[in-house]
Amino acid sequence: MTLAVVTLAAGKGSRMKSDLPKVLHRLAGKPMLAHVLNSAAALPQAKQHVVIGHGAEAVQQQISGFDVCWAMQTEQKGTGHAVAQAMPDVDPASTVLVLYGDVPLIRTETLTKLLAETHDGQALALLTVELADPTGYGRIVRDDAGNIQAIVEHKDATPEQHRIREVNTGILAVSAAHLNSWLPQLSSNNAQGEYYLTDIIAMAVEQGVAVRAIHPQDEYEVQGVNDRLQLAELERIYQRQQADTLLRDGVSLADPARIDVRGTLTVGADVVIDVGCVFEGDVVLEDGVHIGPYCVVKNSRLGAGTQVEAYSHIDDAKLAADCHIGPYARLRPGADLHAEAKVGNFCEVKKSVIGKGSKVNHLTYIGDAEIGQDVNVGAGTITCNYDGVNKFKTEIGDNAFIGSNSSLVAPAKIGAGATVAAGSVITKEVGDGELAVARGKQRNVTGWARPVKK
Amino acid sequence: MTLAVVTLAAGKGSRMKSDLPKVLHRLAGKPMLAHVLNSAAALPQAKQHVVIGHGAEAVQQQISGFDVCWAMQTEQKGTGHAVAQAMPDVDPASTVLVLYGDVPLIRTETLTKLLAETHDGQALALLTVELADPTGYGRIVRDDAGNIQAIVEHKDATPEQHRIREVNTGILAVSAAHLNSWLPQLSSNNAQGEYYLTDIIAMAVEQGVAVRAIHPQDEYEVQGVNDRLQLAELERIYQRQQADTLLRDGVSLADPARIDVRGTLTVGADVVIDVGCVFEGDVVLEDGVHIGPYCVVKNSRLGAGTQVEAYSHIDDAKLAADCHIGPYARLRPGADLHAEAKVGNFCEVKKSVIGKGSKVNHLTYIGDAEIGQDVNVGAGTITCNYDGVNKFKTEIGDNAFIGSNSSLVAPAKIGAGATVAAGSVITKEVGDGELAVARGKQRNVTGWARPVKK
Amino acid sequence: MTLAVVTLAAGKGSRMKSDLPKVLHRLAGKPMLAHVLNSAAALPQAKQHVVIGHGAEAVQQQISGFDVCWAMQTEQKGTGHAVAQAMPDVDPASTVLVLYGDVPLIRTETLTKLLAETHDGQALALLTVELADPTGYGRIVRDDAGNIQAIVEHKDATPEQHRIREVNTGILAVSAAHLNSWLPQLSSNNAQGEYYLTDIIAMAVEQGVAVRAIHPQDEYEVQGVNDRLQLAELERIYQRQQADTLLRDGVSLADPARIDVRGTLTVGADVVIDVGCVFEGDVVLEDGVHIGPYCVVKNSRLGAGTQVEAYSHIDDAKLAADCHIGPYARLRPGADLHAEAKVGNFCEVKKSVIGKGSKVNHLTYIGDAEIGQDVNVGAGTITCNYDGVNKFKTEIGDNAFIGSNSSLVAPAKIGAGATVAAGSVITKEVGDGELAVARGKQRNVTGWARPVKK
Repeated sequence: MTLAVVTLAAGKGSRMKSDLPKVLHRLAGKPMLAHVLNSAAALPQAKQHVVIGHGAEAVQQQISGFDVCWAMQTEQKGTGHAVAQAMPDVDPASTVLVLYGDVPLIRTETLTKLLAETHDGQALALLTVELADPTGYGRIVRDDAGNIQAIVEHKDATPEQHRIREVNTGILAVSAAHLNSWLPQLSSNNAQGEYYLTDIIAMAVEQGVAVRAIHPQDEYEVQGVNDRLQLAELERIYQRQQADTLLRDGVSLADPARIDVRGTLTVGADVVIDVGCVFEGDVVLEDGVHIGPYCVVKNSRLGAGTQVEAYSHIDDAKLAADCHIGPYARLRPGADLHAEAKVGNFCEVKKSVIGKGSKVNHLTYIGDAEIGQDVNVGAGTITCNYDGVNKFKTEIGDNAFIGSNSSLVAPAKIGAGATVAAGSVITKEVGDGELAVARGKQRNVTGWARPVKK
Repeated sequence: MTLAVVTLAAGKGSRMKSDLPKVLHRLAGKPMLAHVLNSAAALPQAKQHVVIGHGAEAVQQQISGFDVCWAMQTEQKGTGHAVAQAMPDVDPASTVLVLYGDVPLIRTETLTKLLAETHDGQALALLTVELADPTGYGRIVRDDAGNIQAIVEHKDATPEQHRIREVNTGILAVSAAHLNSWLPQLSSNNAQGEYYLTDIIAMAVEQGVAVRAIHPQDEYEVQGVNDRLQLAELERIYQRQQADTLLRDGVSLADPARIDVRGTLTVGADVVIDVGCVFEGDVVLEDGVHIGPYCVVKNSRLGAGTQVEAYSHIDDAKLAADCHIGPYARLRPGADLHAEAKVGNFCEVKKSVIGKGSKVNHLTYIGDAEIGQDVNVGAGTITCNYDGVNKFKTEIGDNAFIGSNSSLVAPAKIGAGATVAAGSVITKEVGDGELAVARGKQRNVTGWARPVKK
Repeated sequence: MTLAVVTLAAGKGSRMKSDLPKVLHRLAGKPMLAHVLNSAAALPQAKQHVVIGHGAEAVQQQISGFDVCWAMQTEQKGTGHAVAQAMPDVDPASTVLVLYGDVPLIRTETLTKLLAETHDGQALALLTVELADPTGYGRIVRDDAGNIQAIVEHKDATPEQHRIREVNTGILAVSAAHLNSWLPQLSSNNAQGEYYLTDIIAMAVEQGVAVRAIHPQDEYEVQGVNDRLQLAELERIYQRQQADTLLRDGVSLADPARIDVRGTLTVGADVVIDVGCVFEGDVVLEDGVHIGPYCVVKNSRLGAGTQVEAYSHIDDAKLAADCHIGPYARLRPGADLHAEAKVGNFCEVKKSVIGKGSKVNHLTYIGDAEIGQDVNVGAGTITCNYDGVNKFKTEIGDNAFIGSNSSLVAPAKIGAGATVAAGSVITKEVGDGELAVARGKQRNVTGWARPVKK
């Protein structure tokens, strides 16, 4: 039996107080809806349907990376109505799994278990959860034999029913055939004037369709997000989960409560991460990498043994083994450090190769450069790569020595083994082994009177 | 009936282990006493009295911004004695509210409710609280009808009274007339040899004056600070409160436990604040501002759409819309960025205008400058604004291009559309559209032998 | 009676998923084993024995600072077997205390209490703990009189015994004489095929040797580390403990959950530490020092009244009173700041003296320099101390003024009261009071055409 996953994502989420549609609010750097679609995408043979409404265009744009069949719900007339909008596109022979774009942390494992409970669509499988405080939620009413009889909304519940702690999460699975028969029978004859999906439970019971419930492993899997407090709470749960996974995988974390992973962090053995680091996108840390406190690393690969000191900011860079970075080093897109390269404090490297064992240690800007091996770039060196219109390349040969506070005006070529005298402004090529000096002549003036305070 | 608020602030707070008087210790960047005075100042027609003793001069200095009538308590002889020092200045026809300078988080709403209970000073209104563990606190003893009979100190309580969980907070309101009659009757005939304000409760009961109690909304409102552990605990409660308020107002916070607001943070719609940011003084973040991780922002206004990257430090600056700042950008007092201006890594801007769309992106110091629109300031540029005695201005016209690693010796004037060649030291005016070059001539020396290791 | 402390440190700790032997994993910057040895070293007349196996060489190397008698356990045959390896070196007349290299937070006070329970080795003293959830632990079975009868492993326990919440921690003390008699009688006839030290309890009971138990003050003292989750948990407990100690000692901490002390932090009165700071090694903060957010300070002494602003990184430096550092200041080994010295943003100081009241405020590199009093070093100044092979000194006299963006080519000597013009490259000595200018001549080119986009 094929599977159709229908995810409801049409709500505005006015309590978010945002111009952004609710499901696009980000958790761990990704729209909530993307989390749901990712969890569902891992189910075998899942065809995904998303019901959109508020901010539909924005949702479609941001979620363009997924293979999704869109359904429009132009009016917000309840969950039953929302699912109905998707049904024309759903294979009538499939099982339908209903998810919510604002319930972002549902796990694939839980969905798999839930789907198993449908017995190929014969039963209605419901995800329920036991809450310490069920106030406000629809209660799961069971008969003495434990069979689910109905879902009673909080406001309609008897005092006895109020004591029931098992509540409906809204997530369910059932055959498309049943849905196609039941959805048209829903009524909006209630206080909100909406068509509630939950009303199909009563129809199932009435028609003798078995209703089976399972619980998720963790309560947060079914926590919905209605405001930014709830979003922040889920963010923290999610981050703590990731931290625990890293710890179990053998990473040392100085503080599991102070690491943020917004994407995928792949780690080798004996990686050490100090407090306060933020990882975004795809980051790979090979064996023995040490990351100092308060570093930000995005979309980068750091080779084995590389050490990154405090406050380093690494974005779209490639670092080979045993590099030494920071503190306060900034590697921008296209920084390509070969083994044992060093980039030190207040240095910025953009779209440049730093050769094996080369050092760029202090207050330096390297842009659009190709630097060979064992080069020493002195403090305060600037590659002048931009003339206001075009960018030009700087090439520095192996074993060259660039004196401090030099300006290398690109296009620039410094030969292997060449030396640039400190404070020089280099505008012409320097040959292999040559010494280039380009600075003013010093004159000392005696008897000079310091200016006085005006 | 007028209101006199008497805040006790004379204690030394020896457990703080500090030279600073206790009430001057800061919570969220402000002395504890200032928090109390602020809460009371919001009550209508409140005349504020503060009883000082230890470090009186320091307290008066730090709290000089408030309209307060000071009373001196030269000897520390108990809370009753302290209130008595203020009474000569208190309008005898008023209601008196007694607060404590080391109970900083009391809310105006709670005080308003408390004052209502006095029924214009006829009753004594007491703020009490139910504690899970009341050990050490004075218990509120009530009769079978629920009327307050007395406050019994922990050490004097019977085993049955020890089980009472409602305790006295010390905060109370009553007519000045009653206080003027009761305070002189207080006795110091107790273990501490002090005059306890709480003893007036028994007098009220004896004289048939009604004693009414209400609870604060949150327990922390009545938490006192005796040592820095308690101060740190309240700081965290207060910060978490502010974070929750921001979230409810529609701000996205990456981690509500990692934001510090020490002052007033005013936000527009869809503001995003990453982990670890610190806000001080009056900060305004307009619609859509994004603040990256670990930024510090003080007394500044950031225009709509402005993006601030990690580790930026902004103090007393003004940023128009759509600016892009950081990472590692430092804006100092008087930095005035027009729309779409960019200030990048390892750049410092002080008392300078950066015109619309202009860029100061790398390792640059801009001080006392006026930079026009669409100017590009190259990496490593320094405005040499100081001759050791006086500071001078640098003016750069629209569309100018300042080559990298240039020194602009102020007073300096670079015309519109002018170009400064990289590595130049500019000492003379550069006219509109002119190119200025000011650097040494390069000479290459062949056959030069590198120095050898000494 | 002498004391022999036998610490077991031979395990691999495969759940750590590490190449490092388990006991070398760091807690607060120090190997776990070092914490245990430190706690034991504070016991009077303790001779320390450590049983090593996995990674023995690495352990011996890392722990070389302790006076320890090593014993090898080449095969991992259980705790009883491990202790037996140490016994040949243990004075047979001593009391033996058994500790574990992966139970790092045991306190000296607890060990002292435990040793007292042996009554000079006559009794077997056992450290036990009451757990809310004792699942998996060996239960302490007592008779009706409360005497310990046996330790029953979880899997061997009866349902009734499963309800016992007092469990064995493994830490015990008993005379060497008893151990020498009991250890050879241990059997490996159990599921794991190991010799369990706990089996000596039964022997003691059988032989009428008294078994006495005490509890540690805090449960974390006996928490073992089997994986990095547990290590991270203990790290947080330890850090929180240190934060509380600092608070009690009169330090203001903006957030006790966001400070990391890895070593010894010694503080004067009224020290203030903002959020997110990391201290390593031996750090002394004298009276009134303020540390801004996100600073890293290692092995340094900061004089009274010194202010350190955000993101400063201080390593092996010495700061006299009333210095002002940061934000973004980096002081490297050998930085020696005299009173009232200032080092500002994006400045790096290495192996240099900064004289009294001197200022190095912006984008500057100072290496191997001796700077006198009241010197002003302009923005962007670089001491060019390295020729690629050797390092040279820069000397700057009192009251000198170094213009911005200067390069001081070392060996360099700038006299007292001398002035270096902005943008100069200084290669020759500048006499006292002289003005040195060393820059190119400016020429302005009119009619110059900007390059066009290629």
